[in-house]
Amino acid sequence: MLRKVRRMAAAGPRTPTLRLGIGDDAALLRIGAGNEAVLTTDLFVEGVHFLRERDSALTCGRRLATRALSDLAAMGAEPLAVFLSCGFPEDVDDAWRKGLIRGVVSAAREAGAALAGGDLARSPHGVFADIVGLGRVPPRHALLRRGAQPGDLIFVSGTPGLAAWGRRLAHSGALPTNAAARAALRRHQRPRARWELGIALRGLASAAIDISDGLSTDLDHICEESRVGAVVDAAVIPHPAVSAGLELALGGGEDYELLFTVAPSRSSKVKTLAKELRLPLTRIGEITRRRGLRVKTAAGRIEPLAITGWEHFAR
Amino acid sequence: MLRKVRRMAAAGPRTPTLRLGIGDDAALLRIGAGNEAVLTTDLFVEGVHFLRERDSALTCGRRLATRALSDLAAMGAEPLAVFLSCGFPEDVDDAWRKGLIRGVVSAAREAGAALAGGDLARSPHGVFADIVGLGRVPPRHALLRRGAQPGDLIFVSGTPGLAAWGRRLAHSGALPTNAAARAALRRHQRPRARWELGIALRGLASAAIDISDGLSTDLDHICEESRVGAVVDAAVIPHPAVSAGLELALGGGEDYELLFTVAPSRSSKVKTLAKELRLPLTRIGEITRRRGLRVKTAAGRIEPLAITGWEHFAR
Repeated sequence: MLRKVRRMAAAGPRTPTLRLGIGDDAALLRIGAGNEAVLTTDLFVEGVHFLRERDSALTCGRRLATRALSDLAAMGAEPLAVFLSCGFPEDVDDAWRKGLIRGVVSAAREAGAALAGGDLARSPHGVFADIVGLGRVPPRHALLRRGAQPGDLIFVSGTPGLAAWGRRLAHSGALPTNAAARAALRRHQRPRARWELGIALRGLASAAIDISDGLSTDLDHICEESRVGAVVDAAVIPHPAVSAGLELALGGGEDYELLFTVAPSRSSKVKTLAKELRLPLTRIGEITRRRGLRVKTAAGRIEPLAITGWEHFAR
Repeated sequence: MLRKVRRMAAAGPRTPTLRLGIGDDAALLRIGAGNEAVLTTDLFVEGVHFLRERDSALTCGRRLATRALSDLAAMGAEPLAVFLSCGFPEDVDDAWRKGLIRGVVSAAREAGAALAGGDLARSPHGVFADIVGLGRVPPRHALLRRGAQPGDLIFVSGTPGLAAWGRRLAHSGALPTNAAARAALRRHQRPRARWELGIALRGLASAAIDISDGLSTDLDHICEESRVGAVVDAAVIPHPAVSAGLELALGGGEDYELLFTVAPSRSSKVKTLAKELRLPLTRIGEITRRRGLRVKTAAGRIEPLAITGWEHFAR
């Protein structure tokens, strides 16, 4: 199996940063003078994050790599490599294992990153995987959660909730009936992290996070770490055009969009960026000195915003 | 639980390399101009690598960190940080989780490395963990498996097989009756990687590996990657003074000693190094052009050496 992984990984990009991949005690990577290393790890557990009988191996692999790439994007880091550690039970066939690894390799390759290592073990029960993402960022350019200031404007990329709608469609087994539904399904099955946006936000965003747990939960993370609060405007939050679409946007999870804050004086640059990247970047609210999350309702009232994060129980 | 991990990690060393630890989308580390990043991952699965009812949480944590630190040592890397991803089932109590993390933090700290991040998830069955080790090494100074040349001398640090003897003692439940047995038990329960030796071997060893799977298996890895063979001398291989001690040395596993090769012209430096580090470094054989592993028996015959690696089935 290790030989197979090595062959599949070798099909990925040969980057000048990856000096030595699979086959030694560790991988060797050139981060480059004047860069800092950015490292993230994410677990993916059968029965918690996915169901083998429902989610295809390729989709699982792509989602796995995207989780790591999205964390790197949220830091403003350039992706360099991913590392995959997997436990497989005996009832997992070779095609499923290969599909998972192929999904990881293909999603990583799109971001210019190589599968540079990992570990394989027998699992007594169920598949589990740990994905490691390694990237680089120039010193003092990383996007942190803790830099948001009162008065900063809050932006979100793309359409949060789209992946959750796609997940619902995929799990219902119903065929998508229009272009919007097809886009939602694609977002669930072939998620893509926003690494170009993350890199472009260096020096511009005061704080950033990726929406992997749901917009309200992740906005709360920024506010907690920055010791501030926020008001969002329900009328302008992009969301899927389905019933309870706003709820999907606020609590759907797995969107891998970026949520970020920008000082008002610099917000015109966000518009330019949206055009350059051909990616909707929507202003959805403002950071406040007053702690807690609030929402301006359609009726114009300011109310507390419920935190409805997605909890990953293989729903 | 995340808060607890954060607090326990904060008790570790604040190194100038660790710019941002747990609490954001990823960790930020300064590798330093002119260094390469060295990254390794290792899985640790209940029922495969350990049994919860038998191995203490602290010992599991220490062994986990040591596996990563030992891979870094085998590359000649200076350890910087470890990252721990764990899946815990509901029947694992808080004391066991804390013990595991405490074991990781304490073993990492001894090597000057911080617990800089990771992930926690629910596991439907059994504990599993993935440990990531991050280190640094100057360019072209990493110790690889693939540099051994015919004629190079083969050395091993410490006493291979000691950990396996300790494991046998621990599993038998018998109290150690003498100093040697106590040392063996300690080696199993509080393993320690040889990072100082790895760093000292930069520019001296032509190839290196850590003995985590057993001396014969790991020597075979060096020979495979270097496309050479080896002859070892049974009479000089250090081993525990117990029945079948040589077999323990050749196939015991989890020793975390280093096995390395040095050009004959430079071998006198190894003697100096052993004195400086107060660590036995024993010359046990020679790299040959002829492929395959062979052993010189006590009777002076050269025979094929069986590869008897340790396969981690929680024995």
